[in-house]
Amino acid sequence: MIRKAIGIDLGGTAIKAGLVSESEGLLEELSIPTDAEEGHHRVLDRIAGLISDFSSRFPDVVGVGVGSPGAINWDRTTVSSPPNFPGWQTVHIENELTARLSRPITTLVENDANVAALGSAHYGAGQRFNSFIMVTLGTGVGGAIIYQNKIFRGATGAAGEIGHMTIDYEGPFARSGVAGAIEAYLGQRFLSRHARYRLINKKDSLIHRMAAADLKGITPKMLHEAAELGDEGAKEVLAWAGHKLGCVLGSAVNLLDIRKIVVGGGLSAAGDYILDSARSTMLQFVTPALHEGLELIQETRGNDVGMLGAGHLVFQYLDEKGNSSE
Amino acid sequence: MIRKAIGIDLGGTAIKAGLVSESEGLLEELSIPTDAEEGHHRVLDRIAGLISDFSSRFPDVVGVGVGSPGAINWDRTTVSSPPNFPGWQTVHIENELTARLSRPITTLVENDANVAALGSAHYGAGQRFNSFIMVTLGTGVGGAIIYQNKIFRGATGAAGEIGHMTIDYEGPFARSGVAGAIEAYLGQRFLSRHARYRLINKKDSLIHRMAAADLKGITPKMLHEAAELGDEGAKEVLAWAGHKLGCVLGSAVNLLDIRKIVVGGGLSAAGDYILDSARSTMLQFVTPALHEGLELIQETRGNDVGMLGAGHLVFQYLDEKGNSSE
Repeated sequence: MIRKAIGIDLGGTAIKAGLVSESEGLLEELSIPTDAEEGHHRVLDRIAGLISDFSSRFPDVVGVGVGSPGAINWDRTTVSSPPNFPGWQTVHIENELTARLSRPITTLVENDANVAALGSAHYGAGQRFNSFIMVTLGTGVGGAIIYQNKIFRGATGAAGEIGHMTIDYEGPFARSGVAGAIEAYLGQRFLSRHARYRLINKKDSLIHRMAAADLKGITPKMLHEAAELGDEGAKEVLAWAGHKLGCVLGSAVNLLDIRKIVVGGGLSAAGDYILDSARSTMLQFVTPALHEGLELIQETRGNDVGMLGAGHLVFQYLDEKGNSSE
Repeated sequence: MIRKAIGIDLGGTAIKAGLVSESEGLLEELSIPTDAEEGHHRVLDRIAGLISDFSSRFPDVVGVGVGSPGAINWDRTTVSSPPNFPGWQTVHIENELTARLSRPITTLVENDANVAALGSAHYGAGQRFNSFIMVTLGTGVGGAIIYQNKIFRGATGAAGEIGHMTIDYEGPFARSGVAGAIEAYLGQRFLSRHARYRLINKKDSLIHRMAAADLKGITPKMLHEAAELGDEGAKEVLAWAGHKLGCVLGSAVNLLDIRKIVVGGGLSAAGDYILDSARSTMLQFVTPALHEGLELIQETRGNDVGMLGAGHLVFQYLDEKGNSSE
């Protein structure tokens, strides 16, 4: 029988829940507001509601996977200090959900960037690769490492923080306080500011018709649209972003000898406007001995990889448990 | 019975061979010139001679591990293009050695930085850690990742190239053509040149009495000795080197979530003159969420970790083979 699991993508504004079939992927999807400002009890109530909805209609689901921002413990039971979730500290997801559900069900939580990569590995662009580096270009810059079809977790479960890797030790500061961290170039706020200053005197850029008069509120989407319309200024900004991305990916490839990269997240929609310059720059920053087989591609499943990966986490967990008890 | 293996450290100038006891480490050691300029047949004859010497006296050795520069294939049987070994291309170490030996023996080859790290993990400073990053500061900057007591090999076996990671995308070029690669700061030639220019007008530095009049030929050893004698100029150079090391290690920790670092190689003898600034800089370049448990220490077994790790590779291989055939 083909297994099904519930995959939850816990975001700052919306909770998305998907019914994930091991072989067919996403069968059904629900989405509700997170209400993060009302505290963790409220958020957990809402997650439990989504789980109950699915599990009452599909009593054969084998478990629940939750992709969450914040730090996850090694056992995949707790979340600590997720950004934009006021008052969370450390929340024991497994216990909290179990207490709210009418029957016991296997529950796992994993970092959102990690489950997105796992989703890509099994249902998205990453299916072609056994091992790859995933970068997610959204509000911040997320990252994850898939090694031999599994999440590489590091020593405590927090591996993959590509967003905090430096490309210039005297560069601009990111929120983390790391100078020249890639997030200080590609994080949405940083990129928008760069675009604003770069285009403010370029009066013929289409961006001036898209954003407000002072160019505050430039979004990656605007840059992409303007580039599609042939706007040179917007193209330059996106190529600049790709250059920075290529620098950090070069370092990551040198360290990991993982030569396949999948780029996801909102900004990745700009596709080759960013990725072409990332590819050529990466070649400059990877030592020649590791050039063979280098490949950088765009995620094709968009944000669905989050739910898909959260669901798949359950299948993988059950398989490993099965193997170890044999 | 305690197993014994032969560990070979193949260097550009000397071949060292050690008799490695699984529990007691190095029991006996031989060293002969490499004669690399005479081609790979000559080098392999010499390695085979060392193996025969040990295996005739210790017929119970369970195998031979070879630590070699250059690229190693996934099966650990071949070496490709080791720098400073003229005419090697790809050499099948296992076949070549088997053909030269009077009886069959398990033979493995692994990258020299990787075996050094494995040696540290099981017999050196790395024994305290299950997972750590090893950096070797010698002629170049080598690196390796030990994850859960084993070498993390990446997708093709070449992981750990820390020396090629960039800390400044517009920085100086290393031999690899990577701008701002850490080797362009800490590689011996680069560091010596930096020291020379930095100290050339600092006439009161003791370095002027140690190196030739134009300060060509400054060595890391001189810098260490001058620092020990209280020389401020030499101390500044070593602290500068440590700062650069801290930058790249910050990036590596962010990506891997491996928070323990062991520093080996000739320059590491300078100890805290380098490592203190590396430690404080690393704190600036690791995202705060990963600060807990950060630790950077000096390798204590010197270059012996190469032979030790090469020997241990055999024990680990036999254990894995045993497990998988159960």
